[in-house]
Amino acid sequence: MASIGYYTPTKVLFGKEAENQVGEVLKAEGATKVLVHFGAGSVKKSGLLDRVEARIKEAGIDFIELGGVVPNPRVSLVRKGIEMYRDEGCDYILSVGGGSVLDSAKAIGYGVFGGGDVWDFYCGKRMPEGIAPIGCILTLSATGSEMSDSSVITNDETDPVYKRGCNTDFGRVKFSLLNPELTYTVSEYQTASGAVDIMMHTLERFFHSGHGLDFTDDLACTLLKEVMKWTPVALYKPDDYDARANLMWCGTLSHNGLMATGNATKGDWACHQIEHELSAEYDVAHGAGLAAIWGSWARYVLDTDRERFVKLGEGVFGESDPIKAIEKFEAFFKSINMPITIQGLGLDFDEAACRTAARGVTFQDARTIGDFKVLNTEDVFNIYMMASGLK
Amino acid sequence: MASIGYYTPTKVLFGKEAENQVGEVLKAEGATKVLVHFGAGSVKKSGLLDRVEARIKEAGIDFIELGGVVPNPRVSLVRKGIEMYRDEGCDYILSVGGGSVLDSAKAIGYGVFGGGDVWDFYCGKRMPEGIAPIGCILTLSATGSEMSDSSVITNDETDPVYKRGCNTDFGRVKFSLLNPELTYTVSEYQTASGAVDIMMHTLERFFHSGHGLDFTDDLACTLLKEVMKWTPVALYKPDDYDARANLMWCGTLSHNGLMATGNATKGDWACHQIEHELSAEYDVAHGAGLAAIWGSWARYVLDTDRERFVKLGEGVFGESDPIKAIEKFEAFFKSINMPITIQGLGLDFDEAACRTAARGVTFQDARTIGDFKVLNTEDVFNIYMMASGLK
Repeated sequence: MASIGYYTPTKVLFGKEAENQVGEVLKAEGATKVLVHFGAGSVKKSGLLDRVEARIKEAGIDFIELGGVVPNPRVSLVRKGIEMYRDEGCDYILSVGGGSVLDSAKAIGYGVFGGGDVWDFYCGKRMPEGIAPIGCILTLSATGSEMSDSSVITNDETDPVYKRGCNTDFGRVKFSLLNPELTYTVSEYQTASGAVDIMMHTLERFFHSGHGLDFTDDLACTLLKEVMKWTPVALYKPDDYDARANLMWCGTLSHNGLMATGNATKGDWACHQIEHELSAEYDVAHGAGLAAIWGSWARYVLDTDRERFVKLGEGVFGESDPIKAIEKFEAFFKSINMPITIQGLGLDFDEAACRTAARGVTFQDARTIGDFKVLNTEDVFNIYMMASGLK
Repeated sequence: MASIGYYTPTKVLFGKEAENQVGEVLKAEGATKVLVHFGAGSVKKSGLLDRVEARIKEAGIDFIELGGVVPNPRVSLVRKGIEMYRDEGCDYILSVGGGSVLDSAKAIGYGVFGGGDVWDFYCGKRMPEGIAPIGCILTLSATGSEMSDSSVITNDETDPVYKRGCNTDFGRVKFSLLNPELTYTVSEYQTASGAVDIMMHTLERFFHSGHGLDFTDDLACTLLKEVMKWTPVALYKPDDYDARANLMWCGTLSHNGLMATGNATKGDWACHQIEHELSAEYDVAHGAGLAAIWGSWARYVLDTDRERFVKLGEGVFGESDPIKAIEKFEAFFKSINMPITIQGLGLDFDEAACRTAARGVTFQDARTIGDFKVLNTEDVFNIYMMASGLK
């Protein structure tokens, strides 16, 4: 039986001024009219958008703008983007921003290519069979969308709102221009939340069922140590190139598939499902939500395979006691001002809220989650209770 | 200024029986007639070729065979392959074998696409502007050709013979099917030589001029430790899946560009140039030739930047004395029966031979080599003398 392979066709340009190559890259790609997609306006204020658009113009390429992407990006804006792309005759999408903007761009790309209701691809009704071509200029180290196969969209047209992901190789964008300097202005909170997100993409893969590849484990531990080494530096000195560069490349490699190659499965991913329920309903930062959950998940599943936790602890901390290793991860989260409980997110979760959220995660008992340990509604409820300090 | 980026479009399927997917992969690629390229016959004896060809047939795809590739693959066979591909109306090349077969396949691909004399692309007269589509079933962990941009060909039509490389992104093949089990039958000597080759692809990149990325350094040290951990296991128990799997993935990642990403340059590569002169003229195994050279190169260039050697020694061995770290690499080479001198290769090199070889490396004083430290003919002569125990 084959193991997890590796497929990362995205062309990455890395380093200072990488974004200035956007004109020539788009030209080489054959783009003639680009939908430039961005967020809340910080890329306007910083002058990045002007610079990027000047380069596109210099390359003789036309463009239109669609801003307004918010964290936990909304399907309503995606629908608008699909319409604009078609009405204006675009043939390329350029995402200028962080993972939310890029995820929104991917959704537009699926919608343009596939027709019909774009939400179908996220709620699992249809699988994409293609995507409009997309390039990316990254301004935040976190989601790894710049080389991953995934995008996550929130449906704000329903009550309750749903947050759902779509993972296919079509979601791997054509190119990503990664200039660490563009992340100098990222806030302390977003830097820390991004760091947790990066770590979790590796941790989710580390905990898998079946046989694994030792080298992949060691790469995972190396990446985790790297994030824990450089995040405090970036918080202390936001314009430290080395800190931002190492975090940026950690973010990309953490989620491009490298951290699962040779393993029997793509990993556990239960924490992501448990967190998505929080960020969909309460709009918390994804990384912070993951930090609030992980320790409780880890303690709950520990006995499934203690050796796996021993390997992680030894590889990252030289610590062979699993409980102490879990505590060391939590201590790191706390040291960068990330919560390690749901209360720490500013949410007042009682037993009823835990029950509702758990049923949301399993689609009202219609599915289980997890791979390292398969979890049903009761398990998820227990983890929410632990993370809320109620158990 | 941008740093080294990352571009690895090759689709990798990894694990047991990966090669059995060759039919469906070729079909998805749109292949209708495949040139199946292989080496000296071991893939026939093992039954691999029959199995692969049966899968191709099952997929409704036609094929022809071209075997006979030798280590340090020859341009004469490449010319024959180009002719066959054209005459028989092929539209895909499938390499079944190790790096030599794949390098030969890439050369055929360049020749088919580019027309004219294929040697032009290797002696630097022309750069390729495309390549015929190529897939690979790998049977040896060593060269990393399965995901790298490079191929190396030996011109046996000249006296002296030349060994030259051609590096372009076109050289990154469409797909690589990596089943570690296919390397169970690799001999002790080729396993060890391959391990050195793998390590050297990372070491050459580790030693670069200018600024670098800490994360990339740590990935490099992780990879080197992994090779040193699993090579003895593979030698002791050739059919140990974990040993073969870890070595195989190390071989791929060592040469796909990951180990230079974020650095100012692609690395030094002087040892490769110094070794190519040996394997072109005396047909020694590439990895063994590199082992025979590296320690002498390291001592010769040490004072260029001792800190770089300290970082390597600490990262790999926890050893901060550079000389001791170099000795530890040599001790590892010896432990797997690799030579650490030119005499150990079975060559009786005197001063005149060192002089001739050094002038061959610099194309008779027409170029320098190296990036960590730039070397002229006299430098290369000194390294050959050291490696021959004459200095």
